[in-house]
Amino acid sequence: MSEVRNLKVALLGCGNVGAQVARILIDDADALAARSGARLELSGIAVRNIDTPRDVELPRELFTTDAETLVKDADLVIELMGGIEPARSLILTAVRNGACVVTGNKALLAQDGPTLYEEADKAGVQLSYEAAVAGAIPILRPIRDSLSGDRITRVLGIVNGTTNFILDQMDTTGAQFADALAEAQRLGYAEADPTADVEGHDAAAKAAILASLSFHTRFSLDDVYCEGITKVTASDIASAKEAGFVIKLLAIAEKIESPDNGSGISVRVHPTLLPREHPLAAVRGAFNAVFIEAENAGELMFYGQGAGGTPTASAVLGDLVSAARRLVLGGPGRTETTTGYVQPLPVEASTTSYYIGLDVADQPGVLARIAHIFAENGVSIEIMRQTIHRDSSSAVESAELKIVTHRASEAALAATVEAVKGLDVINSVTSVLRVEGV
Amino acid sequence: MSEVRNLKVALLGCGNVGAQVARILIDDADALAARSGARLELSGIAVRNIDTPRDVELPRELFTTDAETLVKDADLVIELMGGIEPARSLILTAVRNGACVVTGNKALLAQDGPTLYEEADKAGVQLSYEAAVAGAIPILRPIRDSLSGDRITRVLGIVNGTTNFILDQMDTTGAQFADALAEAQRLGYAEADPTADVEGHDAAAKAAILASLSFHTRFSLDDVYCEGITKVTASDIASAKEAGFVIKLLAIAEKIESPDNGSGISVRVHPTLLPREHPLAAVRGAFNAVFIEAENAGELMFYGQGAGGTPTASAVLGDLVSAARRLVLGGPGRTETTTGYVQPLPVEASTTSYYIGLDVADQPGVLARIAHIFAENGVSIEIMRQTIHRDSSSAVESAELKIVTHRASEAALAATVEAVKGLDVINSVTSVLRVEGV
Repeated sequence: MSEVRNLKVALLGCGNVGAQVARILIDDADALAARSGARLELSGIAVRNIDTPRDVELPRELFTTDAETLVKDADLVIELMGGIEPARSLILTAVRNGACVVTGNKALLAQDGPTLYEEADKAGVQLSYEAAVAGAIPILRPIRDSLSGDRITRVLGIVNGTTNFILDQMDTTGAQFADALAEAQRLGYAEADPTADVEGHDAAAKAAILASLSFHTRFSLDDVYCEGITKVTASDIASAKEAGFVIKLLAIAEKIESPDNGSGISVRVHPTLLPREHPLAAVRGAFNAVFIEAENAGELMFYGQGAGGTPTASAVLGDLVSAARRLVLGGPGRTETTTGYVQPLPVEASTTSYYIGLDVADQPGVLARIAHIFAENGVSIEIMRQTIHRDSSSAVESAELKIVTHRASEAALAATVEAVKGLDVINSVTSVLRVEGV
Repeated sequence: MSEVRNLKVALLGCGNVGAQVARILIDDADALAARSGARLELSGIAVRNIDTPRDVELPRELFTTDAETLVKDADLVIELMGGIEPARSLILTAVRNGACVVTGNKALLAQDGPTLYEEADKAGVQLSYEAAVAGAIPILRPIRDSLSGDRITRVLGIVNGTTNFILDQMDTTGAQFADALAEAQRLGYAEADPTADVEGHDAAAKAAILASLSFHTRFSLDDVYCEGITKVTASDIASAKEAGFVIKLLAIAEKIESPDNGSGISVRVHPTLLPREHPLAAVRGAFNAVFIEAENAGELMFYGQGAGGTPTASAVLGDLVSAARRLVLGGPGRTETTTGYVQPLPVEASTTSYYIGLDVADQPGVLARIAHIFAENGVSIEIMRQTIHRDSSSAVESAELKIVTHRASEAALAATVEAVKGLDVINSVTSVLRVEGV
């Protein structure tokens, strides 16, 4: 291997993922060289503070605080600093200098991806970001390459491990949200400030990236409707469970032909009911999975670890070896195909099935009055089930009505729920949740 | 798009998959051109008999019986004829002529892949075959590219839809093998002569391909130990079910450090017990899935349709667009990295857990005598459970002993079973099955 080329790799950031990437670059240097066709030489690691303690012991001479100089001398740049600046400027410097860039920075991509993609195209270099969505799971490359001859119609993703862990805990133990969150924090699955996860912002950034690649267009975070899991109650979960469903926080991107809003793509994140037989329903704990429906391929699912230093490092290194192979072959890169702008649709234009729980008076004619309101608003009922709770003397304590609708628009559903609330026979509306996979 | 390049695509074979590929090439020409950066012009379809009725209506002037001439004039060749010859010679002609080749021919790849890969490397063209394993599921590209910076340690695949359908039927309805097979044939999931599927030959060819890519080496069908599902009984299934397992036909490729046989790769296909919580256990009907364990990425699973004209066409077209993109960029292809020869291990060198069902006499000391034999042969018992069946007068009718072992070698297990059979307290050995995923 004496005439093998040397490629300089600059690493920006040395947190959880960065430290593992550095370790693997050093420990597995020979295997990576054999697979790349070039030696991948870690030329330096840019950090804010050299003396910060790291998870992994790494040669001190590799560290520098001068990211700019490091980037200018690199063939390949790995950006794992997170945040918008200076990550954005450093990536642009790298790209304009002809370096290929690997990043896991979903926030940056969701906010300003189009600028970065265009600059990379202009410079003829690769910008890859498999680590930005669903950690270790190879999902972006299959969408970009393997499904390039197909038409994706819908993507449903469990792309945030923290919220999946919390919802799974609630489902398994019957815990309330606050208790499940505390448990997730205790086990290291949730951060001290869990806002970005539980409010769905992290999933929304990933939804924007998934939607852009799947539909050959460019969506930003602003195009994503976002609803977190903080309002999901133990009783929502119990009630869904009894009806054969599990509640998951899904990132959804789907093609919609809407008579009112025109056709386009709906991109959204919200708690969603899934039938227990759906492949995504079996995704437990902090695992991630992405379920894809394509015109020809049909249903596909990709499952694995969505976070963690070592798993995410696997995705970073896959991108790095692929970029190195391209450099060795001499061909310019082409990171994605964008064939045009497709309209992102407002959440009102999306249609889903709904699950509605009602606490009703046990009177004759109640069901008929409720059914009438649904019909009036154009919302078709698929399943309606009434459960009567009695006390020990067989007197009726309460009556519970559970309704699963056929696909309906957000607007029609909202109008239906408003009208139902106005009925004197309704004590309360206990759940309104979206259903997928039926 | 006036200055867009034109690439000539020759299609060899027009069966189930080929007809769908032709249809999509014609119907989706504009979208495929946008994604490839070149127009993919279907220049002809080579068939044995032009007048054979097809699933799809296609322009008659595209058909030819002269495959050789068609191939010589093509930039991209899609081989979907199946069988060894003339497919092999035509692929070699294409490659030597500088055309990129896409094939779904698993039998040819498993038998003579190395010759084809070498010729493609020599000519600097791409030879891709995503459609050869697990139909529509993007699995080969993720292994080759996304996991190129990781080390795969084990692959477990449900890669044959027919056998998965049959085993799922047996599991769901309690049917015997013969009845489940008849049902599969009636529904079109099994062929009139089901040998290649039920004896595991189809899965074995896919195992050879998966193992080669996963371990950067070259295995052929001869390196794969193969056992089909024809001997799996309804009582095996029932007994596994009661113990919390499901039986699947798995294609397994794993790295083994064996003190006796040296380290190497074990590649095998056999009926296997999986715990019901394992992600592969939820793969129902004719669906396929591949479960991968990698050092850094951890556990990954890829799920989807493993057969069918349209789904498999999706994989063919993904390969075609990727190959076209490379041609447009001008870079030569590099289809896989083979970094050396790794020893394939005989099945005796592999270790798995085993499930053993015994019909025993209900006598004091039976368990101890059996446990002693296991210990003598170095097979460690994980779970041992005895069930006593009594008739209506509470007299013992029979006693059933179920044993799950820790990982043991095939040789040690075989010796153990032989010794157990010799005990006078054993009425019969009812099941000996391998277990994975524990």
